[in-house]
Amino acid sequence: MKIQDLVAKGIFEQSGYITPEIIGEIKMDANENPFTIQEPLKRKLRERMGGVVLNRYPVAGAPELRERFAKYFGVKKNMIMLGNGSDELIQILCLTLKGKIKGVLVPVPTFSMYKIIAVNTGNKVVEVPLDKKFDLDVEAIAGRIKDDFPALIFLSSPNSPTGNLFSRSKIEAIIRRTPGIVVIDEAYAKFSGHSQMSLLKKYDNLIFLNTVSKLGMASIRVGFLIGNPDIIAQLDKVRLPYNINSLSQVAASFFLDYNDEFSKQIKEIIKRREELYRGLSQIKWIKTYPSRANFIFFSCAFDSNRIYNKLTKEGIVVKNLNILPLMPNCMRVSVGSKKENEALLKALKNISPKQGA
Amino acid sequence: MKIQDLVAKGIFEQSGYITPEIIGEIKMDANENPFTIQEPLKRKLRERMGGVVLNRYPVAGAPELRERFAKYFGVKKNMIMLGNGSDELIQILCLTLKGKIKGVLVPVPTFSMYKIIAVNTGNKVVEVPLDKKFDLDVEAIAGRIKDDFPALIFLSSPNSPTGNLFSRSKIEAIIRRTPGIVVIDEAYAKFSGHSQMSLLKKYDNLIFLNTVSKLGMASIRVGFLIGNPDIIAQLDKVRLPYNINSLSQVAASFFLDYNDEFSKQIKEIIKRREELYRGLSQIKWIKTYPSRANFIFFSCAFDSNRIYNKLTKEGIVVKNLNILPLMPNCMRVSVGSKKENEALLKALKNISPKQGA
Repeated sequence: MKIQDLVAKGIFEQSGYITPEIIGEIKMDANENPFTIQEPLKRKLRERMGGVVLNRYPVAGAPELRERFAKYFGVKKNMIMLGNGSDELIQILCLTLKGKIKGVLVPVPTFSMYKIIAVNTGNKVVEVPLDKKFDLDVEAIAGRIKDDFPALIFLSSPNSPTGNLFSRSKIEAIIRRTPGIVVIDEAYAKFSGHSQMSLLKKYDNLIFLNTVSKLGMASIRVGFLIGNPDIIAQLDKVRLPYNINSLSQVAASFFLDYNDEFSKQIKEIIKRREELYRGLSQIKWIKTYPSRANFIFFSCAFDSNRIYNKLTKEGIVVKNLNILPLMPNCMRVSVGSKKENEALLKALKNISPKQGA
Repeated sequence: MKIQDLVAKGIFEQSGYITPEIIGEIKMDANENPFTIQEPLKRKLRERMGGVVLNRYPVAGAPELRERFAKYFGVKKNMIMLGNGSDELIQILCLTLKGKIKGVLVPVPTFSMYKIIAVNTGNKVVEVPLDKKFDLDVEAIAGRIKDDFPALIFLSSPNSPTGNLFSRSKIEAIIRRTPGIVVIDEAYAKFSGHSQMSLLKKYDNLIFLNTVSKLGMASIRVGFLIGNPDIIAQLDKVRLPYNINSLSQVAASFFLDYNDEFSKQIKEIIKRREELYRGLSQIKWIKTYPSRANFIFFSCAFDSNRIYNKLTKEGIVVKNLNILPLMPNCMRVSVGSKKENEALLKALKNISPKQGA
C-alpha cells in the first residue's frame, strides 16, 4: 500500500492546521470571552447538565434549539442550521456547493480555516488581497469571477485578524456580481454593534455564519448557519444527523436563558477594547488599527517574534501573525479583563525596540 | 441563482438521512445501552461538568484523552484519533482517501451512514450483497476490486442490522486483495466478547472504528479511529481542530474512570440479549438470527409495518427494516432492560398473524 496513492493530492501536500501548544496564564490568542460565569449561574448549569440522559443519542438536528436560536437571530426556523462550531458549517458548505459552479474565493488575510477546509474538501481556492484599508477589493474579486467561478465567497466581517468591518456597499457589489453564494461570517458582529443580516431580505445568494464561541461559550462548539431555506435544505442533507451532542445542546439553551449575563460581558469587553486600544496606541513602536471585534490588530516597528517570545515568557500568549504573507511583524491580541490588559501593556512597555536591551 | 447549478449532483439527487421522529416510552430502535448511571456517579459527573471552563476553546485534538483511550484500546498514542461520533471519522476517511485510488465499497445490508457519507463527500459507492449467512461474499467483493478500486471498504463487525460477526478468514482475504484500506467498525464488538484488533500487527491497510455510543454514552458523541499512524497523520489534517467539545471530553474521561460500571452494564445487556433471543424464538411467526451485538435481528412471516405500528401504539419503538432492499418484513430491536424486553415480548405475542385480528 502506497499512502500517497490513496490520499487526495491537496491534502497530502498541505501540512494541516497548527493549533497553538503554548499555554500561558493570560490567554489572548484565540479571541475568547475572558470572563467565566459565576455562582449561582454555574450551579444552575451544573444542575441542568445532571439532567442529560447520557445513554441516549442527542435529539437529531436539535429542533428545539434551532427554533430558539431562530428567534434569537430574528429568522424563521427553516432558515437556521446548527453546527459543531462554525468549522463544521464551513465544511458542509464546501462539501455541498460543488456543482456546475464550484470553487472558493477568500480575501486575504482572513480566518485561515476557510482555505484549509476548502482544500480538504477538494475545492480550488483563490485568494484575493484586501485593499490598503483592509476593505474588499471589489474589482479584483470581480476579475476572478468568470467562467462560473466561484460557488462560495467567504467574508468575515468584522474580519479576523484585521478587526474591521467590510463596507456594506462593497459586500453588496460582490453579492450582485457572483454567480455563487456569499457567506458573511459574523462571529465577531456582537462586538461591532452591527449586523448585515437585514441583507437577507434583499438577496437569496447570501448565507450568514455565527457562533457562541466569542460570546462566552467556546468550549461547547455550537455555530449557526443562517439564510435561504432552499440552500439550507440541501446543506442539511450533508450535516451529520447527531452533530450537536446532548451536553452542548443543554449548554446552548442555557446561553439563551441567561443571555443578559453574556450581553453584559460583551459590553464590558467593548469598554476594555477601547482602553486597550488607547494603551497600545501610546506605545511608539506599535501601529494600532481600529477594531470592531474583541481583539486588536497591530504591527510592530521591529521583529514581532522577539516580542512574542518575551510575552510568552511572562505568561502572556498572543497571536503572532509574522509567519503569514502580508503580515510582517503583525500581531493580534484578544481583549482581556482589565487586569489582563494592564499586564499586557506593562509587558509591552518593557520591551525595547533595540535588540538585546 | 439556480440552486441545482451550485449543489453537488450526488447530494442534490439524494434525500438525506432520515432520523426517526417517533418517541416511545420504550426506546429499542437505536442500539443504545438502556441503563443510565445512578447516584453517586451522577453527582460525580455533575461536579466534573461544573469544572469546565466554558469560555475557552476545548483542548485541540484532546491529547490527554487520546493517550488514555490509546491505553484502553492497547495501542500507541499516534495510532488513535477522536471524532464527533464515528460519523465524523467516516466523513474524514471519505474526504481524505480520494487519491489515485478512490471510491467506497460496502457490503449490504449494513450501517447506512457509510453510503450516505461516501456520496456526500463525492465518492462512487459500490454495494455488494452479503451471502445467505450474512457473511462476506469474498469472490463478489474481489470481483469489484479492479482498476485500483476502491480506497475504502467498510465492514461493520458485528454487522448492523444483521447482528453477526464476519468470519476472520474472509476479512483477511479482503484485506489482502484490496489496493485500499479496510475499515472494521467495531461499535458493537464489546457485546461479542471479540475484537479483530490483533490484525493491526499483521496488516498496514487496516483501520478500526469504535465508539462509546453503544456502551452508555451515546449523548456525548465520541468515536475512535485506530490504526496505521502514517494514515492517521493524513486523516488528522482533515479533522477539524476543535472537533471534540470540552464537555464531551470531560464525559469521555469519566467513562474511563468508571469503566467497571459500564462493563457491568454490558454484561447485563449480553445476559438480557440471550433471554430476549429465547423469547423471540418462541413466537412462531418470527424467525430470529443469532446476535453478537446489543440488538436482535428477525424477520416476520407477515407484514412488519403492521407489527411496527402496533408496537408504536403501545409505546415501544423498534427499527422497521421493511423499507430497505433485501430486508422484507425484517426488524431490529435493541436489547432493553428486563422489564422492557418483557414488555416487547408481551406486545409481540398479542399480535395475530391474521390481519384485523
